[in-house]
Amino acid sequence: MRILSPSLAPETHLSLHEDRLFSSDPTTRSISRELYASVARLPILSPHGHTDPAWFDHNQNFNNATALFLSPDHYLYRMLYASGLSLQSLGVTRNGEESRADPEQAWALFAQNYHLFLGTPSRMWMDHVFATVFEFDEVLSPASASNYFTKINEALASEAFRPRSLYERFNIELLATTEGAVDTLDHHRAIQNSGWQGRVISAYRPDSVVDPDHEHFKRDLIRLADLTGEDVANFAGYLRAHRQRRAFFKSMGATSTDHGHPSAQTANLGFDEAAALYATVTSGVFTPAEAELFRAQMLTEMARMSLDDGLVMQIHAGAYRNHNQVIFDTFGRDKGADVPSSTEFVRALKPLLDLFGNEPELSIILFTLDETTYARELAPLAGHYPALKLGPAWWFNDSPEGMLRFREQVTPIAGFYNTVGFNDDTRAFLSIPARHDMARRMDARYLASLVADHRLTLSQAHDLIRDLTYTLPKQAYRL
Amino acid sequence: MRILSPSLAPETHLSLHEDRLFSSDPTTRSISRELYASVARLPILSPHGHTDPAWFDHNQNFNNATALFLSPDHYLYRMLYASGLSLQSLGVTRNGEESRADPEQAWALFAQNYHLFLGTPSRMWMDHVFATVFEFDEVLSPASASNYFTKINEALASEAFRPRSLYERFNIELLATTEGAVDTLDHHRAIQNSGWQGRVISAYRPDSVVDPDHEHFKRDLIRLADLTGEDVANFAGYLRAHRQRRAFFKSMGATSTDHGHPSAQTANLGFDEAAALYATVTSGVFTPAEAELFRAQMLTEMARMSLDDGLVMQIHAGAYRNHNQVIFDTFGRDKGADVPSSTEFVRALKPLLDLFGNEPELSIILFTLDETTYARELAPLAGHYPALKLGPAWWFNDSPEGMLRFREQVTPIAGFYNTVGFNDDTRAFLSIPARHDMARRMDARYLASLVADHRLTLSQAHDLIRDLTYTLPKQAYRL
Amino acid sequence: MRILSPSLAPETHLSLHEDRLFSSDPTTRSISRELYASVARLPILSPHGHTDPAWFDHNQNFNNATALFLSPDHYLYRMLYASGLSLQSLGVTRNGEESRADPEQAWALFAQNYHLFLGTPSRMWMDHVFATVFEFDEVLSPASASNYFTKINEALASEAFRPRSLYERFNIELLATTEGAVDTLDHHRAIQNSGWQGRVISAYRPDSVVDPDHEHFKRDLIRLADLTGEDVANFAGYLRAHRQRRAFFKSMGATSTDHGHPSAQTANLGFDEAAALYATVTSGVFTPAEAELFRAQMLTEMARMSLDDGLVMQIHAGAYRNHNQVIFDTFGRDKGADVPSSTEFVRALKPLLDLFGNEPELSIILFTLDETTYARELAPLAGHYPALKLGPAWWFNDSPEGMLRFREQVTPIAGFYNTVGFNDDTRAFLSIPARHDMARRMDARYLASLVADHRLTLSQAHDLIRDLTYTLPKQAYRL
Repeated sequence: MRILSPSLAPETHLSLHEDRLFSSDPTTRSISRELYASVARLPILSPHGHTDPAWFDHNQNFNNATALFLSPDHYLYRMLYASGLSLQSLGVTRNGEESRADPEQAWALFAQNYHLFLGTPSRMWMDHVFATVFEFDEVLSPASASNYFTKINEALASEAFRPRSLYERFNIELLATTEGAVDTLDHHRAIQNSGWQGRVISAYRPDSVVDPDHEHFKRDLIRLADLTGEDVANFAGYLRAHRQRRAFFKSMGATSTDHGHPSAQTANLGFDEAAALYATVTSGVFTPAEAELFRAQMLTEMARMSLDDGLVMQIHAGAYRNHNQVIFDTFGRDKGADVPSSTEFVRALKPLLDLFGNEPELSIILFTLDETTYARELAPLAGHYPALKLGPAWWFNDSPEGMLRFREQVTPIAGFYNTVGFNDDTRAFLSIPARHDMARRMDARYLASLVADHRLTLSQAHDLIRDLTYTLPKQAYRL
Repeated sequence: MRILSPSLAPETHLSLHEDRLFSSDPTTRSISRELYASVARLPILSPHGHTDPAWFDHNQNFNNATALFLSPDHYLYRMLYASGLSLQSLGVTRNGEESRADPEQAWALFAQNYHLFLGTPSRMWMDHVFATVFEFDEVLSPASASNYFTKINEALASEAFRPRSLYERFNIELLATTEGAVDTLDHHRAIQNSGWQGRVISAYRPDSVVDPDHEHFKRDLIRLADLTGEDVANFAGYLRAHRQRRAFFKSMGATSTDHGHPSAQTANLGFDEAAALYATVTSGVFTPAEAELFRAQMLTEMARMSLDDGLVMQIHAGAYRNHNQVIFDTFGRDKGADVPSSTEFVRALKPLLDLFGNEPELSIILFTLDETTYARELAPLAGHYPALKLGPAWWFNDSPEGMLRFREQVTPIAGFYNTVGFNDDTRAFLSIPARHDMARRMDARYLASLVADHRLTLSQAHDLIRDLTYTLPKQAYRL
Repeated sequence: MRILSPSLAPETHLSLHEDRLFSSDPTTRSISRELYASVARLPILSPHGHTDPAWFDHNQNFNNATALFLSPDHYLYRMLYASGLSLQSLGVTRNGEESRADPEQAWALFAQNYHLFLGTPSRMWMDHVFATVFEFDEVLSPASASNYFTKINEALASEAFRPRSLYERFNIELLATTEGAVDTLDHHRAIQNSGWQGRVISAYRPDSVVDPDHEHFKRDLIRLADLTGEDVANFAGYLRAHRQRRAFFKSMGATSTDHGHPSAQTANLGFDEAAALYATVTSGVFTPAEAELFRAQMLTEMARMSLDDGLVMQIHAGAYRNHNQVIFDTFGRDKGADVPSSTEFVRALKPLLDLFGNEPELSIILFTLDETTYARELAPLAGHYPALKLGPAWWFNDSPEGMLRFREQVTPIAGFYNTVGFNDDTRAFLSIPARHDMARRMDARYLASLVADHRLTLSQAHDLIRDLTYTLPKQAYRL
């Protein structure tokens, strides 16, 4: 497909430049360097993500390069799929059923198409992992694919590449995973009882028992009843069940909840009205508007519970999930076919904010996939309401460019102290250091530009980068 | 809350770097410097703002630092409120009732939390005022708070800090305030009769008698009838009353009207239909859609009147006012709880433009809080319709970043000559020079980047910066 | 209107700096220079535009400067119109009727107001044409207007300035025009039969027989029936007629279709439902929603046909056409009164994508006037669906700033290989080299910034700029 200019041999050397991502302006670059150096070695706080706690419980070696990097990472295989490759050929799981693709052949396809990722953060994260975790010094390419596959697999089989060893090597201070309301957190318990020093906590994500459109809504409500002994046939029992599960998650170390909703809509129904709505949506016969209203009401209920139990509330709003019907039917959810959509916050959050927006003890962290809301809605809201804070650039916007746009649009309106530092939000464990490194570099770059423009002093920038890297996530997530 | 890196003593020296806000690229910086120097000392035209004409009438000394800077400025106290401080503690007026907070304690809270403003234009404006108007050379901090409070209060008590002296010292050539339709402009009359040379004019802002949702709609309609002798019980009389008040404002020096509407919706109803709608909204029983339609129709009526009397028409569209119900109930309007919302112009303005858009004698200046409309709607409209011009980056976007985004998005489509120069739009009198200085620097920076990229010659940039600073506001506002 | 600072003589020398549009940062500039140099002389592929095939058929000399540049180019006269000049005075055609304006006077008005274009791409394109095609070395101004007019007219009368000579001089490898479904492509046939080596192909744009709101819908349906012999009174015949015309266009060299719709809405109706809808919209009595649904269904039908005949499908969505009713009534369509409006893709495209989104053999190129959709909707969609690619920054966004925003927002999410290179999309034939030059420079600048930030190697950037300039358009348009 791609025609290389014949006169140019493609460079094959892989190295990470020490000044990567810094501005090429010499003044700004040297300030960036200094700021970055001051936080480069700080421990990693990862207060929101999707790694698998079983890894740290069982501490078993990862299988092979394809199974570790490619088949589970929709950031990678979506782009390959867009270029015309089948998901089957890349080893992607089909509705929970293991793929029968040959891992080495899948890896070769990845290598062959690695140029598709030029200019994307995925490419930078992968190169970072290849260079620092596996110490490759040639780029991944058709020529090096087989060597990569062999060497990665060898490394993965070693003691030093077991999950706990990597956690320690990555200098992680805390890692939060995300579990559903009916998860029993057995792995978290086992980790805590194992004597290992790593801190792996969960976050309470009750989507499957809050969203009537979720494919497991009915199933998980039954599990919720079983787990709590509450009668979830009525709304009061259902709310008590949530409180019980939240208390359980909190007892296991969780400090936050997380809510992945198609919109940021909230509602403030009276108890009887909410109970009747609950009866409707659990009956299995309901309209899309009723489902939306129930989700909206539940965000408000969750905020009410957070005010009581102190769990920080995260709202990840605006993903149109499973947009590709064919892929959803064949492969299931989370297969790279989620797309953002236009998201409204000002009217959507008002019912919740009318009740709880003025509570300084409540902490709601908002995430958006719609960058137009940064300056227009989110920063003005967070710069006024004590209960609101802004999460970092999320998912599709978790790129150097996206991070800069986030800071440039949010800072003039809400400053730095209504933001919460970086989230890696990843299921790609090995890329965590790469992602935090990118975030630290981009914060250094942004702050350096303010210093170079004489809007901040160097001393202020030093304080700020430390706060953005370490202090703010610690405070915002109550770690 | 904030943890300073222990190894770093916070810098305490306050100084304004002469190159602040210019790009750190040496080429661009030196061009910026030259362009800025050519306009830095031009007089200030402030054709739209919210200072109090009583200041220039009575010419009394301001009270104290807190009463001057903090308690009336929602740009400042909203951010402190977001951090968990109460409005009471900051001396904010409660529904018109003076605060009983101790001014010095309020000032100390401000100083303690001054880091919340790092990276915001508020911080730059305040530092500019502190350094140039009060000649402080240490930054505001908990350590310097008391010294600041004392020295500012001493200065404010002196002759040189009376409003008229400051007006002259600031090199203001013209200052426009904004008054409601039923304001009698007594202060403006007194200023004009006082023999003082300062030019303080008003702008006609009839929102309270145009917006059926305004809390003073009924009260102010009665005042409007009283003032004009017109029978505002019928639409024809109501329109005549507007014409009379506009003529009065114009006779007092006003050159513009101003309309703060939740949307940019316009309408073109027949007279009978409009009269019937007027009857409905003045009956007190009306739907939100009827209120919106009435506001829409009135924008068109105002344009029709502007075509007759030559007043420039400003439309400030898209603020969701008084979003925080608790704050509105307790403290009233304009308390930092206004937030932008998504705003549409292309369809909204069509009824008005179908009637008057092709009139070169009409001048309508559009303002938005929704930056997504710059390149998508506003610049294409202003680059075609003779009646339209674009106001500068407004309110939440009145930041260095917001100004750059405005120019970068508007210029390629509408050029410079469909824009109107800078508005400070402020009630913070002492910050006016700081705001104009920021605008001039950012225009210099933007133009310098075009010169450095060889898109403009230096000579063209010199012409442009003079036009943006002085010629365009003078022409656009017919000063 | 404009006041020049008296101390400054306006510069009169016109020259194109060899580094124009490159970043002023020395590192980035030198990389930009190298990258640009490697593609500056590549032939021009112009796979989408609006030049007149009659020019290349008849190969007659152009008339005069005004008739060539000003009167037909709505990019230029819209801005002059916005400043208060009449379209009549600029020689604009009135509903197909030739203007009686004096061309030299019209040219003088243009020259007098040439400063209105400072900072716009139109100004850069014109200066490029003046300097390189006509070899002027003084800027267009009131002083030089007459000289310009004379010299341009002299040149236009010469052999070297005939359309075919210019095509060759411009190093154009392929030029696509755009014709309606009922065009007989006589000029294209004549060009092909003439023995001339230039390659001028058409693109199938069936808007006038697809859009029930089009003023020629009824007329062109009759022509469609006449041309194809199909019974377009029923939907099946109508679809067969499309297939026949597409086959004809393809036989004449066309490789693509083009669809200019007010929205990106698609639909998937059953055949009977679609046939009934067709009966409704062809009856002349239909609602706006029915017209919209029919256009939506036809996008899906066109995709279905593309899957069969291999024509690449372009969707140009989101223009509000003929916004100015007065201008439309007096002058007709395409008179600078089209404005963008907010455009939604995620829900709009779903019906089509559910059917054909997973087909790697289908190629749909999406264009938007709503930049907010780049990162939020278009890049995530194109980074997943095999059938989707993204067209370049379009129309109002076809500026240096717009091109950068396109790359910065799209690249991190969809990379480079889901984009299709540059389209000039112009009816201004002489500006084609200027437009491609700008695009190449901006790609060089963008890639150079990634190299300078150590996100790409120089070798990768060399491959990329060649692909963006030449390989991608060739592949994406199947040339």
